Amino acid sequence: MSELEGNCLVCQSGGPTAVINASLAGVIEEALNHECIEEIYGGLNGVIGVLSEDMIDLAAESQQTIRLLKSTPGSALGTCRYAFKKEEDLERALEVFKAHDIRYFFYIGDSESMAMLDQLDALAKAQDYEMRIIGIPKTINNDISGTDHCPGYGSVIKHVATTVREMACDNESIGEGDYVSILEVQGRNTGWIAAGAALAKRRDHPHDPPHLILIPEVAFDAEKFVADVQKVLAREKYCLIVTGEGLVDADGNYVALTSTSTDAFGHVQLGGTGEFLRNLVETRLGVSARSSKLGVSARAAAHGASQTDTDEAYLAGSAAVTQAVENGKSGKMITLQRAEADSYKCETGWVDLSDVPTGSKQLPADWINDDGISVNFPFVKYATPLIQGEVTLTWENGLPNFAKFKGASIDKVLPAYEI
Amino acid sequence: MSELEGNCLVCQSGGPTAVINASLAGVIEEALNHECIEEIYGGLNGVIGVLSEDMIDLAAESQQTIRLLKSTPGSALGTCRYAFKKEEDLERALEVFKAHDIRYFFYIGDSESMAMLDQLDALAKAQDYEMRIIGIPKTINNDISGTDHCPGYGSVIKHVATTVREMACDNESIGEGDYVSILEVQGRNTGWIAAGAALAKRRDHPHDPPHLILIPEVAFDAEKFVADVQKVLAREKYCLIVTGEGLVDADGNYVALTSTSTDAFGHVQLGGTGEFLRNLVETRLGVSARSSKLGVSARAAAHGASQTDTDEAYLAGSAAVTQAVENGKSGKMITLQRAEADSYKCETGWVDLSDVPTGSKQLPADWINDDGISVNFPFVKYATPLIQGEVTLTWENGLPNFAKFKGASIDKVLPAYEI
Repeated sequence: MSELEGNCLVCQSGGPTAVINASLAGVIEEALNHECIEEIYGGLNGVIGVLSEDMIDLAAESQQTIRLLKSTPGSALGTCRYAFKKEEDLERALEVFKAHDIRYFFYIGDSESMAMLDQLDALAKAQDYEMRIIGIPKTINNDISGTDHCPGYGSVIKHVATTVREMACDNESIGEGDYVSILEVQGRNTGWIAAGAALAKRRDHPHDPPHLILIPEVAFDAEKFVADVQKVLAREKYCLIVTGEGLVDADGNYVALTSTSTDAFGHVQLGGTGEFLRNLVETRLGVSARSSKLGVSARAAAHGASQTDTDEAYLAGSAAVTQAVENGKSGKMITLQRAEADSYKCETGWVDLSDVPTGSKQLPADWINDDGISVNFPFVKYATPLIQGEVTLTWENGLPNFAKFKGASIDKVLPAYEI
Repeated sequence: MSELEGNCLVCQSGGPTAVINASLAGVIEEALNHECIEEIYGGLNGVIGVLSEDMIDLAAESQQTIRLLKSTPGSALGTCRYAFKKEEDLERALEVFKAHDIRYFFYIGDSESMAMLDQLDALAKAQDYEMRIIGIPKTINNDISGTDHCPGYGSVIKHVATTVREMACDNESIGEGDYVSILEVQGRNTGWIAAGAALAKRRDHPHDPPHLILIPEVAFDAEKFVADVQKVLAREKYCLIVTGEGLVDADGNYVALTSTSTDAFGHVQLGGTGEFLRNLVETRLGVSARSSKLGVSARAAAHGASQTDTDEAYLAGSAAVTQAVENGKSGKMITLQRAEADSYKCETGWVDLSDVPTGSKQLPADWINDDGISVNFPFVKYATPLIQGEVTLTWENGLPNFAKFKGASIDKVLPAYEI
């Protein structure tokens, strides 16, 4: 395969993760290895930066910045939840690619981003503009189909499970009467993150916290919940509950909404499930309860990130470049796959962008126990390898140091475009 | 001074911290150094364990357990918020001491505990029972008078400031329009913890997050708050707010209450301040906002603890034993003091228990800027040394390993006592 010469553009999209910048670092460092890639641009705020020609020169960033990037949370290039809104957006993106000789486009995003990339790839082909478009999956929610797991997931569940172990030590100390402690974690439509809290249980200690795991895949029933809490309190001196933010009842209605505001994709802002449960426990059982809500702090918790997840996020980024440059692939999403081996080993693969459904991949029903409040060994076996290893941050004066791009802007050459 | 021979008893009380067990380890390891101390007992659940003779043999615990203890959150002996409720409680405690030849009593607790210890010490003296009673301060709230700072505080603010740095990376990524992010932290009556978030600002970067710090020492005014948020949003693309849980208005009323339940000391359960502010931002400014509430997870965050704080907590525990055994002190609380030196150095001292007020030490007014939403350099200079150094936990299979006492019970010798 003859190498395609030109520039490379990389963007980040959707909700940040603790390791989305590791994927970016993987793209940058691998791109530097290939002479056919001339310039390495970063688009600011996802596809918005493409449409508005807001790009920076990533090769001009220091090596120290790229090293720090691997353990910096958030999306260093900025992100967006913007999806193409009109037909002209696609045309405009391609116009920008042509104007800047972008031949390689790497987009780190979730399943909704993959659908957009697929459209772009089709348009480039229709216009006979030779380029390579590769999607790199990221999401704390682990809900993208086609990949064994998603970069970002291992780190968030390592942080959540660590937090549960720590809260368990604290909650167990409280010596006076019954005590219920609730930890609300993210996860809009799926229970992947809440389920990950199950890793906090020690092997062969099924009664270890979390005592109840509540997920959107199991319809919430207040009567059963109250009975489940009572059962735990009869056995233990406290009950530690981990809940996803998006619990729904049997009719599919969210049990707790704190706001009517919606984001750019029309998603309702969820939250308040922990407080809802706390109130239920106090009013129905007369038992003292407290709730914590990690919210955005969990997906940003670089100090609690998984080394395995960080390495795999980096690998997904570098594999995208390799597939595009060496194998001439386009219209694909990089996937993480378990190698056939006695112990866990992760390899990258790819799927066609058109084969990535935009919906959320649910937690498999056969990993949820019949009690509806716990997950089984196949889930634990699946998730445990993803949380191995601790990332070492760069500490300075007692706090972590994170990368910030200098951000040397690329000159705009096209007329302004209204987004 | 002739040495007093007998047994030693140590208890933990009040809300746990990330390092309260380091103080316990300090007591145990120092007690082992003194031959005059025969047995080392741990009382379960604070003074409740004293009254009910629920004690375990701490010398029988493995060295590995004591090593892990130094980085285990929660109160390994269990805790209580129980204060002596009747005159007989004092008499009973002394009866238990006599029955078990307890000559050294170490109590790790907050200012309310110190008042109780003072009463006990007076009664022992009145009954001519020779013993040494020493209080060891602990609280994440840093509100005990007489000590420069309290073990537990450095770790919680290191975790909070780390979380702010991480959330800032995440929040800064969000590229679409204004965005307000709220982090609610503990601190019932004082702003010490919320103020500690200010350490997240880099030197000479006053506009770094947190952009607003809201504390109980400054009366909350909704109009000013809305204007402050608007001012930040006009300057930055997001506004990161850290708030204490106990904000009060000009009339001294809490602005947000989630529950009418009270604990054993009659404290109202606070919380929901973050959600209250989120709602205010969305309804008044029409700006998208999210809130996170670290709650108990912050005080339990051993994985984010300060090495300095851990060392000082240990030191406070060992100093209590040294003062009691070598200097024959009783009726004192161990204090942490800054040594006269060019760089930060911490020494222990003591104050009379009777000189420790039970009220909360407020954040000094002259450390709060006139804007009411930030703290000044003297605070930063005070707090920065307390967050230095990172604790290395013992990780196993991707998660931290924490100490759990075997708990060999001491035989009860007295008739049961109704608490």
